[in-house]
Amino acid sequence: MAKTNPGNFFEDYHLGQRIQHAVPRTVSGGERALYHALYPARHALQSSDEFARGCGLPGAPLDDLAAFHVVFGKTVPDVSLNAVANLGYAEGRFLKPVYPGDTLRSVSEVIGLKQNSNGKTGVVYVRTQGLNQDGEVVLDYVRWVMVRKRDLDAPAPDPVIPDLARVVPAADLAIPQGLDFSRYDFALAGDPHRMADYETGEIIDHVDGVTIEEAEHMMATRLWQNTAKVHFDATFRGGGQRLIYGGHVMSMARALSFNGLANAQIIAGINAGAHANPCFAGDTVRAWSEVLDKAETPAPGVGALRLRLVATKGGEAGQLRDTDGRYLPHVLLDLDYWVLMPV
Amino acid sequence: MAKTNPGNFFEDYHLGQRIQHAVPRTVSGGERALYHALYPARHALQSSDEFARGCGLPGAPLDDLAAFHVVFGKTVPDVSLNAVANLGYAEGRFLKPVYPGDTLRSVSEVIGLKQNSNGKTGVVYVRTQGLNQDGEVVLDYVRWVMVRKRDLDAPAPDPVIPDLARVVPAADLAIPQGLDFSRYDFALAGDPHRMADYETGEIIDHVDGVTIEEAEHMMATRLWQNTAKVHFDATFRGGGQRLIYGGHVMSMARALSFNGLANAQIIAGINAGAHANPCFAGDTVRAWSEVLDKAETPAPGVGALRLRLVATKGGEAGQLRDTDGRYLPHVLLDLDYWVLMPV
Amino acid sequence: MAKTNPGNFFEDYHLGQRIQHAVPRTVSGGERALYHALYPARHALQSSDEFARGCGLPGAPLDDLAAFHVVFGKTVPDVSLNAVANLGYAEGRFLKPVYPGDTLRSVSEVIGLKQNSNGKTGVVYVRTQGLNQDGEVVLDYVRWVMVRKRDLDAPAPDPVIPDLARVVPAADLAIPQGLDFSRYDFALAGDPHRMADYETGEIIDHVDGVTIEEAEHMMATRLWQNTAKVHFDATFRGGGQRLIYGGHVMSMARALSFNGLANAQIIAGINAGAHANPCFAGDTVRAWSEVLDKAETPAPGVGALRLRLVATKGGEAGQLRDTDGRYLPHVLLDLDYWVLMPV
Repeated sequence: MAKTNPGNFFEDYHLGQRIQHAVPRTVSGGERALYHALYPARHALQSSDEFARGCGLPGAPLDDLAAFHVVFGKTVPDVSLNAVANLGYAEGRFLKPVYPGDTLRSVSEVIGLKQNSNGKTGVVYVRTQGLNQDGEVVLDYVRWVMVRKRDLDAPAPDPVIPDLARVVPAADLAIPQGLDFSRYDFALAGDPHRMADYETGEIIDHVDGVTIEEAEHMMATRLWQNTAKVHFDATFRGGGQRLIYGGHVMSMARALSFNGLANAQIIAGINAGAHANPCFAGDTVRAWSEVLDKAETPAPGVGALRLRLVATKGGEAGQLRDTDGRYLPHVLLDLDYWVLMPV
Repeated sequence: MAKTNPGNFFEDYHLGQRIQHAVPRTVSGGERALYHALYPARHALQSSDEFARGCGLPGAPLDDLAAFHVVFGKTVPDVSLNAVANLGYAEGRFLKPVYPGDTLRSVSEVIGLKQNSNGKTGVVYVRTQGLNQDGEVVLDYVRWVMVRKRDLDAPAPDPVIPDLARVVPAADLAIPQGLDFSRYDFALAGDPHRMADYETGEIIDHVDGVTIEEAEHMMATRLWQNTAKVHFDATFRGGGQRLIYGGHVMSMARALSFNGLANAQIIAGINAGAHANPCFAGDTVRAWSEVLDKAETPAPGVGALRLRLVATKGGEAGQLRDTDGRYLPHVLLDLDYWVLMPV
Repeated sequence: MAKTNPGNFFEDYHLGQRIQHAVPRTVSGGERALYHALYPARHALQSSDEFARGCGLPGAPLDDLAAFHVVFGKTVPDVSLNAVANLGYAEGRFLKPVYPGDTLRSVSEVIGLKQNSNGKTGVVYVRTQGLNQDGEVVLDYVRWVMVRKRDLDAPAPDPVIPDLARVVPAADLAIPQGLDFSRYDFALAGDPHRMADYETGEIIDHVDGVTIEEAEHMMATRLWQNTAKVHFDATFRGGGQRLIYGGHVMSMARALSFNGLANAQIIAGINAGAHANPCFAGDTVRAWSEVLDKAETPAPGVGALRLRLVATKGGEAGQLRDTDGRYLPHVLLDLDYWVLMPV
């Protein structure tokens, strides 16, 4: 009897299936320090307890993407160990900040299944929730992946493609309890620009670049207990190259976006996301953003800005797709998300 | 007057000598986070305060091998700075879990000495204890190393080879106070297999591999304040290669063993250990285990499993020695140890 | 309207200008653990809460240079983003230890300005203070940098060169409240030598070397939220080499100096400092110290030792300058500083 986890194959999923993912995790100041060592993260709200208190929170939460990675990492052994591709994200909402001392676990529900016409793979849609020690949902998102079949003769399920919102409505974004930007300290935050200074359609080049090292992406990916072989084992693919966890690029780009969006303090929603091309050690990652929308929130002084965050390994800010609509080869990530910032 | 530490040479040791090792260390959530960033560690008991409480502990302890490395690292300047080889371990017992906030120090006693027939080196046996801030022994183990003589004319001591148990008797293993696996959550732990599912003689291939980077093994080794030059200075040996601390391989293999032994939550004893071949950056480390024995314990729902953990940089699971009884060249570590797991 | 920070150019500074630097930072055990993973730091006072309590402090403070890096890192976006060279340090005083849980921010005042005769650059002198959450100054130092002009036609300011002390007088060093070395545990600290054992003019070779990796210096530099492109972006300079943050070399050398100066527990002052030559990944960093002076302090059992700490990538201990007074090409750092140690 094999005791190792072979992961799930396409025919192992069924609609409505609930998966309790393993290995709960308590986070501490250690995770916060490592996040700041691995990424050039500088948003003041996640860097300083004092600044966070000045914004009505009890202390500095963990970076929102750190919480995302912890929740996501737990799903890998059950959802994407036999995945061919991570296809998309939708309806992501950050419902409660995660603080040092919190313990996170993840559960998923299969909400869609569609076998591909080649009969070898299928698409699995899961809604994943991250829960804290009090059972409160801190994060809720949908992702879909293409998964191999083990038995090509297994019957195809009735295809069900969930009806997913293209964008999380601003009114559905959760505002952390107590959040108040009405006495926001722009000088300490490092940027004078409030939401009113950003225009829909505006492109922001974040200027800085970081050349990626193997040791760093592996440490990050392990920290989130993401175990996909392809990130760690240089012998697994041809050419001795390890594929970098897409979330590493996401965090790198988000951190780089400080330079131009320092006041985009809190990630409130993920509308869509694509890992457009793979990233490897030696690539120099840069980022640019496009302002997609603006919205008000009921919290004092708090607005919501919808942004496209693009990570690249070359090219110019604003260049995303070729004339056929395909991502340009230097584009690594295209993330559509909501942030909370001073109005 | 030289102020730097030249380390001890063989003739500097005498039987019954007690050595108080320097630089006590307070551990925190930072060490835990780094352990999880450096190794693919996922045992739930050391990952989640909530899971640990569900098993009767006050919170998640530091990984047992992290505690081992902290205690071991302190002995290096006094015991192995002039060592030619680390020859073995015996009678290792983990007596109390180490928690964030604890301060560890190490003391050793010389329990054996034997000059080699070449007159240039000798074997030193030490029993090392790690103590916490309350003076409680958290770890006790014997290790023996081959150490150079400084003065080849120094007289040989009367040879004393300590009588060491080949295996720590299961009845002598310390069970952490309060440990109770009777309401153990197998789903959250990530593996349905209890001790009853493992058979003596069974071989478990842990499947995953990690390609080692210089930055990672140096960070790990420094974190334990292990100062042996050979791990850090690429000019120290020929070929520009740094020798990787054997404990790094130990932790890597133990973490990889999650995949197949996720419920082997606590290391209770180390019966024997050999660093069979050196490991260098670029090696891809894999692991397999062999079940050696099973035993009951007085704690509710808690059994003891004796395992051989083998780290390799190639070969097949189960391949350990050649026909002459020598370790195969791809074998890095052969560790005989006891774990506590649900019966 | 560009939203990214272009940094200040020489003509943007004026005498008496006060700059509140952005992004306050709360430190925790995570920063301490990372400091010990990134550098072979072993001074007992910063390693063990128990040892620190035995010396009259409430717990182990963060390494003094870690506090320095946090305070320094915040000044980079405002002071040295367009700097050609970091020219010097003076009048550095560590006024209060920094503990896990403290939140640091930085403010600077422009105290000197002098345009260079080429009309393209100028020297800016700033006095920087690091403050904790209670508004207490924890660190105060002067640094001067050569900064580019954006507009070569901008008028030169009246030259003002501040009158800086060549050495911080021993009487002006701040002693942490409660510090008492009268019951100091030399065995636990790892070195029997007290201040009386060191002679002015004595050279100490710290023996050990560490070969530097890209991943490590980037993690360190990011941890201090230092954003200078040149440290992270391999495409920024010719040759694909990232310039290593001078503070990384400073911390590496200070940590290596444990071997020979283990009792030099606390950095109290920085008299002068020069980053003599650049450091790159692959360099093996070594260190030596010269005893420059000795002084008494009012604290029980506490003396002040003035040291020159030299980091090198070759050469012999004691070799610093050529016959023309220029730093030898293998010298990386020349730091003149005060430490507190048992008398």
